[in-house]
Amino acid sequence: MNPDVVQFSRGVPPIEAIPARELAEHTEAAVAELGPRLFQYPPIGRYLGDPTLREQLAKRHDADPDHILVTNGSLQALDLLAAHLLSGSGAAVYVEGPTYDRAARIFERHGGRVSSIPLEADGMDLADLRERLRAEVPAFVYTVPDFQNPSGVTLSLAKRGELLGLAAEYGFTVIEDIPYRDLRFHGETLPSLSELAEGARVITLGSLSKVLSPGLRIGYVISDADTALELATRSEGVYLSPVGLCQAVAARALGSGLVTENVERARDFLRPRHDAAVRSVQSSLGDALMAVPDGGYYVGVRVKTGSDPDAFLDRALGAGVKLISGSAFYPSTEKSTVDTMFLRLPFQAMTPEEFSTGVERLAASLS
Amino acid sequence: MNPDVVQFSRGVPPIEAIPARELAEHTEAAVAELGPRLFQYPPIGRYLGDPTLREQLAKRHDADPDHILVTNGSLQALDLLAAHLLSGSGAAVYVEGPTYDRAARIFERHGGRVSSIPLEADGMDLADLRERLRAEVPAFVYTVPDFQNPSGVTLSLAKRGELLGLAAEYGFTVIEDIPYRDLRFHGETLPSLSELAEGARVITLGSLSKVLSPGLRIGYVISDADTALELATRSEGVYLSPVGLCQAVAARALGSGLVTENVERARDFLRPRHDAAVRSVQSSLGDALMAVPDGGYYVGVRVKTGSDPDAFLDRALGAGVKLISGSAFYPSTEKSTVDTMFLRLPFQAMTPEEFSTGVERLAASLS
Repeated sequence: MNPDVVQFSRGVPPIEAIPARELAEHTEAAVAELGPRLFQYPPIGRYLGDPTLREQLAKRHDADPDHILVTNGSLQALDLLAAHLLSGSGAAVYVEGPTYDRAARIFERHGGRVSSIPLEADGMDLADLRERLRAEVPAFVYTVPDFQNPSGVTLSLAKRGELLGLAAEYGFTVIEDIPYRDLRFHGETLPSLSELAEGARVITLGSLSKVLSPGLRIGYVISDADTALELATRSEGVYLSPVGLCQAVAARALGSGLVTENVERARDFLRPRHDAAVRSVQSSLGDALMAVPDGGYYVGVRVKTGSDPDAFLDRALGAGVKLISGSAFYPSTEKSTVDTMFLRLPFQAMTPEEFSTGVERLAASLS
Repeated sequence: MNPDVVQFSRGVPPIEAIPARELAEHTEAAVAELGPRLFQYPPIGRYLGDPTLREQLAKRHDADPDHILVTNGSLQALDLLAAHLLSGSGAAVYVEGPTYDRAARIFERHGGRVSSIPLEADGMDLADLRERLRAEVPAFVYTVPDFQNPSGVTLSLAKRGELLGLAAEYGFTVIEDIPYRDLRFHGETLPSLSELAEGARVITLGSLSKVLSPGLRIGYVISDADTALELATRSEGVYLSPVGLCQAVAARALGSGLVTENVERARDFLRPRHDAAVRSVQSSLGDALMAVPDGGYYVGVRVKTGSDPDAFLDRALGAGVKLISGSAFYPSTEKSTVDTMFLRLPFQAMTPEEFSTGVERLAASLS
């Protein structure tokens, strides 16, 4: 690949947002303290993960440690959860359109009939969801409510309440996936769906990848005690237990305040990139911007590509910008609307100059 | 549980067989050398695992590094492989009877119709297999050829050749799972199935859990380049990549000769336990012993329990010995033969005195 090509690809954190030096110290300290135990098998049999880590995570989310299962990254948690909730049943699953591509693929692999609810500037179109619920109640609705991957959209407070009301009324589960939640650069944090749940069943997926380190591969599910044990049994049958060393390092990082500090550092580092990215999109692509994210890694746009989306992507690459086709972020059975394509523009790992160059090249490819 | 109860349960290595001090040093060195990279996302996209680790593993097994996929423990590898080979198809799978319980459960979860080929003192009954092949050719045959978990049986050289001949003739895949292979205490190592394969398709599952550290959760599959990439794509969809830190530590441990040294140490530590365990079983249970293992962790016996196996297990527990029901080591659709139960007696984590006490209590419960 031409090194001059601007690549709007993955949501990998910039190296500046990973506290490598402090993590090295915590790794050394964890091994010194717990070495022989960490190199032995971690426990199995109703094992939800390192108890110290689960206590720290419970504090972080105001949850019960016995409701938390730790996994090798949150994608693994999503896979276990999909197996648990779907069991290859062919049940309906509603996701946002666009949605996190890997999540949609997991639900499909586990036999879910996945379809999307259109995403608006303030979250999913609940009138559409309401309509759909009258026809069929899904096993679950999957949402990334804060600074969504891939669009940057945040579900508004009003819609959070309304979604949970529908979940309680129709009896479906809501899965909220919140890896970016702490990375807010402007405005007030909204209550999470689990905080607002009341009569609805909400399962929360968390991750330390965006606030501490993706290399540790620490994800977790917060549900209820029974579901946590059910998922633990499933995970034991697949990989026995998550890596003890990574769990011990994560527990130390949370307990020492490193995660809190690093979130501040990451916010300060990313805020100007976010602001510049929004300005750049507004100036070059106008009202293509789906929403001002105010957090996270992504700006989402909807652009008119003409009737041949592949030709557009080739044209863009020729102009020096590599884009992921918007259809990747939809269920496999759905296509982006002809003529209009969703595009994810991750800003977190680029200088404002590089991002802006990419957006200008994208704009030039549209005409 | 009464601390005086002798527990014949899991195959967990004794702490003496895990080089914790050296692993701590390698961890520190790996973090010092590669820290920022290890705390970032490991690569994805046709990523088979850390290249240095795969080179070391390739040397160890005289294989091509591009044929090796590294996973979070070898159980995870087995899960990916079962998904790949079975795709929920309901295909037949033949395992040894008894077999590794977790493997049987994985094949069943992925839709395999799992049935067992009786195990003899020199490996599976190939006359029985031949008969079965005339009726139905399975997707694969799964075997633990060296010091089998759970029976301690080793597949003889003659039977290795014959099994591979059948695999070539009928066109089924052989999966060999070899975590215990290096832990031979007496006699000559037999060639692995992959070394003898010729016209047959053999896929090898390896693990560092029994020769270095189970806490690192390093397993691997050795197949062909296409299958390795296929499995890599599947693994990316489930957990992105295995933990980089553990892979880097494992690569250093292999490269420095620590694994080779530790295998010698583990053999020297385990040999007297094996010898005493065999003597104890021969003296207390006579011809119940399935085979003298000469390696690994397990002695297997077949005992007459009477017509109520659960009552026997309760009686044994009352006498101070906890046993896993033999039916756990068979496909779910099969029961142990009435009156005769298989029992796994792991000797690796017990002193000879403790093991012998357990066997005497077991013997007393039979009468």
